[in-house]
Amino acid sequence: MTDAAPPGISRWAIRIEFDGRPYVGWQRQKSGLSVQQLIEEAAEHLTQGRKVSSVTAGRTDSGVHAAGLVAHLDFPDDAPLSRKAVRDAIGYHLKPHPISILEAAPAPEGWNARFSATWRRYRYTILNRPARPAMQEGFVWHIRAPLDIEAMQEGANHLLGGHDFTSFRAAACQARDALRTLDELTITRSGEYVYVDVQARSFLHHQVRNMVGTLALVGHHQWHPDRVKEALEARDRCKAGPTAPPDGLCLMDVGYPDNPFQP
Amino acid sequence: MTDAAPPGISRWAIRIEFDGRPYVGWQRQKSGLSVQQLIEEAAEHLTQGRKVSSVTAGRTDSGVHAAGLVAHLDFPDDAPLSRKAVRDAIGYHLKPHPISILEAAPAPEGWNARFSATWRRYRYTILNRPARPAMQEGFVWHIRAPLDIEAMQEGANHLLGGHDFTSFRAAACQARDALRTLDELTITRSGEYVYVDVQARSFLHHQVRNMVGTLALVGHHQWHPDRVKEALEARDRCKAGPTAPPDGLCLMDVGYPDNPFQP
Repeated sequence: MTDAAPPGISRWAIRIEFDGRPYVGWQRQKSGLSVQQLIEEAAEHLTQGRKVSSVTAGRTDSGVHAAGLVAHLDFPDDAPLSRKAVRDAIGYHLKPHPISILEAAPAPEGWNARFSATWRRYRYTILNRPARPAMQEGFVWHIRAPLDIEAMQEGANHLLGGHDFTSFRAAACQARDALRTLDELTITRSGEYVYVDVQARSFLHHQVRNMVGTLALVGHHQWHPDRVKEALEARDRCKAGPTAPPDGLCLMDVGYPDNPFQP
Repeated sequence: MTDAAPPGISRWAIRIEFDGRPYVGWQRQKSGLSVQQLIEEAAEHLTQGRKVSSVTAGRTDSGVHAAGLVAHLDFPDDAPLSRKAVRDAIGYHLKPHPISILEAAPAPEGWNARFSATWRRYRYTILNRPARPAMQEGFVWHIRAPLDIEAMQEGANHLLGGHDFTSFRAAACQARDALRTLDELTITRSGEYVYVDVQARSFLHHQVRNMVGTLALVGHHQWHPDRVKEALEARDRCKAGPTAPPDGLCLMDVGYPDNPFQP
């Protein structure tokens, strides 16, 4: 895969919001409806049905949401496009799916939604109260017992910086190595909600959900915060905690040195 | 209707959260499923099927949500009840409906969810951006053009205090008079969201939605802020703006001098 747009292609950047519940995830799969398929099909209304292909900065899993995922769309070069037309027309053709195009812009020379990204930011939301969620069902992990967020933060601090994250990596992960650098891992409480905010250049498959599932053990006082360090150093998926459900996870934003959406 | 619980009755206060989309509103109606019917039926699991009746502090309309609605349930006096049992058992029997019991407590002597309430608080949420909502569909009023919230606040200030709100009252409103006192009407912006927070002892039918629909005209500069005063003084529903959709409206909280939920 080359980074830049091939000749004869007009590359556009889009910023997307979606409710991940109805989909198998971002990527096209035979097993069901994907966000990628729906966006490409909606974009093909702008090209009289000629093929539009897409690449995303983050291949979210089934049930994971996005508030600011970035992707690029490769259109035939002669398609008449404007920022407003791409945003509104694709958004229109995506109806009634809970997928919305927030912004669209022509990609800078050589720009690639996946390879040009220098950071990804996720928020994981826990609803921490006895009563089950009514309005937030599907968008939170419901944990009844009160979480000790100071202990969670102490455990989280062991994961900051550069490490081999083998213990927090899904078996199906296709990355060449498990070396990643966590720039931020912050746990905050706002009333009944506990937020885990995390940022890195890139993440391994299920890394955020595996870290959250592990930190929840610390929050329940089932694990001492230092056991997170032991789990990390073991480089063994079996030594870390369970995978948190997809519901609470949302891809918030993707960063580029050469931001295509700047006006 | 008397205020206090009749003899032989054990009155309980409950605080409820619900997603209003699937329901005809709080009140039982022949035309569809109501929150009241579902809660009473769930509560009857605690009384071997004997009748439980309820009264709410706010009869929300179809599609209107609640984050902290208060109601009371009148159980037969011999039903064995505890705070935890009432909250968790009713919550359990409400599954899979998006209705959750946040708290339950025995009502103080003479307490009535409707007549003892001294204030109600609502939040109306507007998503103010070009792209349609994906994750917030059904929970916001989507307005594409940027709203001038300073102008909206200037218009809103004419409604503060005690007035005859005939111009903002639904034709179907059953209240004896239209005199109400608005204690708060605040418009704030947080990124793409505009919030209208409003508090009063009580509201007329559709009053919040009619005020929001009118203030949106001011936010669009279709109306000068002073026209809100003229509309109010006309005491004529036709002189005020349209009714905002139910989607953005949420009953946030109800206040009592004698708060039954205090531990």
